Amino acid sequence: MQKRFLLLAATSLLAASSAQAQSAASASSAAPAEKVDAAAMAKIRDEGMNRSKVMETAFYLTDVSGPRLAGSEGLARANAWAKKRLTDYGLVNANVEPWGDFGRGWDIDKSYVAMAAPYYHAMIGVPKAWTPSTAGPVRKAVVYVNAKAEADLDKYKGQLRDKIVLLPVPETSLPHPNFEPDAKRLTADELQKMADAPAGGAPTAANRPPAGDMEARRAQLLAARALRQKMTDMLLTEGAAAVLSAGRGTDGTVFTTNGAPYAADAKPVLPELEMSAEDQLRLIRLVEAGIPVEVEMETKTHFQTQDLKGYNVVAEIPGTDRKLKSEVVMLGGHLDSWHAATGATDNAAGCAVMMEAVRILKATGLKPRRTIRVALWGEEEEGLHGSRNYVKNHFADPATMQLKPDHERLAAYFNLDNGGGKIRGIYAQSNEAVKPIFAAWLAPFNDLGATTVTLRNTGSTDHIAFDAVGLPGFQFIQDGLDYFARTHHSNEDTYDRLVPDDLKQASVVVASFVYDAAMRDQKLPRKPLPAATPPRAQ
Amino acid sequence: MQKRFLLLAATSLLAASSAQAQSAASASSAAPAEKVDAAAMAKIRDEGMNRSKVMETAFYLTDVSGPRLAGSEGLARANAWAKKRLTDYGLVNANVEPWGDFGRGWDIDKSYVAMAAPYYHAMIGVPKAWTPSTAGPVRKAVVYVNAKAEADLDKYKGQLRDKIVLLPVPETSLPHPNFEPDAKRLTADELQKMADAPAGGAPTAANRPPAGDMEARRAQLLAARALRQKMTDMLLTEGAAAVLSAGRGTDGTVFTTNGAPYAADAKPVLPELEMSAEDQLRLIRLVEAGIPVEVEMETKTHFQTQDLKGYNVVAEIPGTDRKLKSEVVMLGGHLDSWHAATGATDNAAGCAVMMEAVRILKATGLKPRRTIRVALWGEEEEGLHGSRNYVKNHFADPATMQLKPDHERLAAYFNLDNGGGKIRGIYAQSNEAVKPIFAAWLAPFNDLGATTVTLRNTGSTDHIAFDAVGLPGFQFIQDGLDYFARTHHSNEDTYDRLVPDDLKQASVVVASFVYDAAMRDQKLPRKPLPAATPPRAQ
Repeated sequence: MQKRFLLLAATSLLAASSAQAQSAASASSAAPAEKVDAAAMAKIRDEGMNRSKVMETAFYLTDVSGPRLAGSEGLARANAWAKKRLTDYGLVNANVEPWGDFGRGWDIDKSYVAMAAPYYHAMIGVPKAWTPSTAGPVRKAVVYVNAKAEADLDKYKGQLRDKIVLLPVPETSLPHPNFEPDAKRLTADELQKMADAPAGGAPTAANRPPAGDMEARRAQLLAARALRQKMTDMLLTEGAAAVLSAGRGTDGTVFTTNGAPYAADAKPVLPELEMSAEDQLRLIRLVEAGIPVEVEMETKTHFQTQDLKGYNVVAEIPGTDRKLKSEVVMLGGHLDSWHAATGATDNAAGCAVMMEAVRILKATGLKPRRTIRVALWGEEEEGLHGSRNYVKNHFADPATMQLKPDHERLAAYFNLDNGGGKIRGIYAQSNEAVKPIFAAWLAPFNDLGATTVTLRNTGSTDHIAFDAVGLPGFQFIQDGLDYFARTHHSNEDTYDRLVPDDLKQASVVVASFVYDAAMRDQKLPRKPLPAATPPRAQ
Repeated sequence: MQKRFLLLAATSLLAASSAQAQSAASASSAAPAEKVDAAAMAKIRDEGMNRSKVMETAFYLTDVSGPRLAGSEGLARANAWAKKRLTDYGLVNANVEPWGDFGRGWDIDKSYVAMAAPYYHAMIGVPKAWTPSTAGPVRKAVVYVNAKAEADLDKYKGQLRDKIVLLPVPETSLPHPNFEPDAKRLTADELQKMADAPAGGAPTAANRPPAGDMEARRAQLLAARALRQKMTDMLLTEGAAAVLSAGRGTDGTVFTTNGAPYAADAKPVLPELEMSAEDQLRLIRLVEAGIPVEVEMETKTHFQTQDLKGYNVVAEIPGTDRKLKSEVVMLGGHLDSWHAATGATDNAAGCAVMMEAVRILKATGLKPRRTIRVALWGEEEEGLHGSRNYVKNHFADPATMQLKPDHERLAAYFNLDNGGGKIRGIYAQSNEAVKPIFAAWLAPFNDLGATTVTLRNTGSTDHIAFDAVGLPGFQFIQDGLDYFARTHHSNEDTYDRLVPDDLKQASVVVASFVYDAAMRDQKLPRKPLPAATPPRAQ
């Protein structure tokens, strides 16, 4: 959810500078050479490259399960399938484990929208998550509401009853011939910069668009949200029929988000579709030229309020070392997605890789000393809820930093959630002591393009929940492919975007890291424990 | 229409080699230096660059008129608007002139398609042109019919009654992360190659995908079409409810074509949608995994058979020279489009530029010696019908090469139909004598990127109708932008793709060429007259 994301982003900046200071304070001493079991690495590589099931897993998580919005039926299908499949792989203690209260489930039963006048044109639009149904099939005149400030809203009063309201298309979303490729891989130069980067820094993937001035952007977004809230109230009061808005995306690709809170007691909103920019702009241009425009549409959605809980899927490969098996190496990624597609790169890819990694470890017959636990998180998209609450339930609450006994027993957490691209290295998350260890672990896979350890922090996904309580949680560096241009939260985040060779490579690298962490004499070195943070800043 | 296009493409190859032979036979002598009126060029440039109406014209041709399929209501709206606007500009003899019998009009009244089981997912699909309505809203099980040869069809017999039939997605249309930019401009190298190219050659735009072996491709396409015809017959006989197919396009972009002939007496076909590749592939993957899939859809289309004629819009700026005003310089582009979008780059762009060119000439107060006639062709997409029949009605029938009196009076024809990109030069179409003339005419606009005269032929648009009867007809070289990747016959060929600066530049260059041709003492030199060609090969 945008609000929480925004706060998260701002908080990450603070967390990053704090981590940097701590990191600089803890002098790193030369570690003994890291042992890597070459024979085990070869087995893992052979199994993952030659008998991969990662695409089959991805198919069941995407096409078969469907969109996996937090609390949705699709996510429940995926959870159930994953639990069963992990059990089939020979994992134990497989469970769909509730993490606490989330909110309402929501699913789409029908979505249709078209321009009906001045001529017929079927349009591409997606209901915003948690928005209600229209009053059956409706056909209405449209009004373009282009308010830059609260005062602008007044002029629309009395004109909106029973109308479909058009909102502007953001400047950043105007379609144009695109001279930049959608998909990119990290270059040697970009990787070298990451390798040379100091600890800390903004949470950034190298090929993510520049974040700009975070604080200014935050203020701008907060103002836009406040205006939008006023507008929502006015549209309801005035009796508008529905809203058509447009976010990011062109060419038939529509990036989606939520149009209402998921809280069970959320205030009502109007039915709202997120439209393709081209369709929305045509409507706006016609209206602005004084040509009467009518839209016909039908949205049917339903809410589920019987079970307001959120869930994570967990399963284990028991450790085999008497002393170490009470310690746990975790790996995970979030299984929930947005609702306009099947969340293939965000983040069925990461979950398929994690499931494949444990399958590889079982299939090779390797005997990890520590227990390995895979977790497929729920409700990440709305603020890392699944992982944050799992951490709170099992390890520590960052608000108090009262540690539970299992806090001591977690050897490492590895996360994958930066799209479907292969692994190019790992973010050491300002933990200088792990840098040489990770470098040694990557060495057997340098030839597969996995080369780089960066001290940089990265954020916006579930390893942050672990990092926030001083646990060693890491996200891998991945090639961006077309994640930001095309798939991230869009209607085009489908199975088709997944690149089998990339996911095989990632599965092998993850399996190896997990195995290395499970075999190492010591748990991974940790950063100093952070101070307790007030609940608001979580 | 695909069939006619295919024959056209094959014919062009023959025409090209024939032209090459003729061109080599006519020895070119050194022409006297070409005069260019610098003051007039400056006026044209100032008007076109600083007081352009080209985007306003494009808006009315696209957004306001709507899709402009041959024979459709949208094309009729655009024709009527263009006639009126050209009259408003001060042109005379504006007319929507019938060229002969075309066939049925066809328009879409509703288009909706979604996967209804195993879960709900609204899909992107466009009715193929001239296909009928479904029997109201329907919800049906789907069957995947993957026939590589006629014999494969047998196994589906008895299984298709009341089913929605899925057809395969072409290998060339499988989505994947795209490392190539959608949009490109011609490089200096590419332009130099065109400048150095000999006369004739394949009809090619420099950034069009390689044509491959034309004959092999033709045989392949004919075989595919024969199989498709057998399948169509079988699906009708077996009582299938509708067909979902997929052509080219990914990311929500769908390239469209026709699904039935436009002839008034065409055989019946099933309702058929051209689907987004991602949606179609999901359906196919689910069916192939043994998961029952249902689709709900509603297509409403209507046919118009009262007026089977096709039309061109024409209008004139009368010449002012007593001796030369009976001679005509023509400029044009086709106004019809495919139906899934508003045909902005194919070819509202070309028409808007042509309308802007005559507006510029009127606005500057320049007095052309020859008469200037603008033509916006109808029914180009189905085989250059508008221009071919105009040429046949006014100049000559290529089947007989009996010349009408106006054949002698046509000084030149200039066409624009290679997308919305700016003009980089002109195809001399194997006419060696015009090369230095065009080079001189381009000189004042070299600084705007219009530099190159190539002797190469180009095809697939309306100058071919003139060239086929020995008239000097030319198409400009244009930057490709995202024409082939994104807009050409797609649902994303919308106003948004147009680049104002490119269309302004093109308008200025076209206006200057038309003016130069209208002022020149002599008409443009011609190639030798071609031999009569049998009607089948038109």
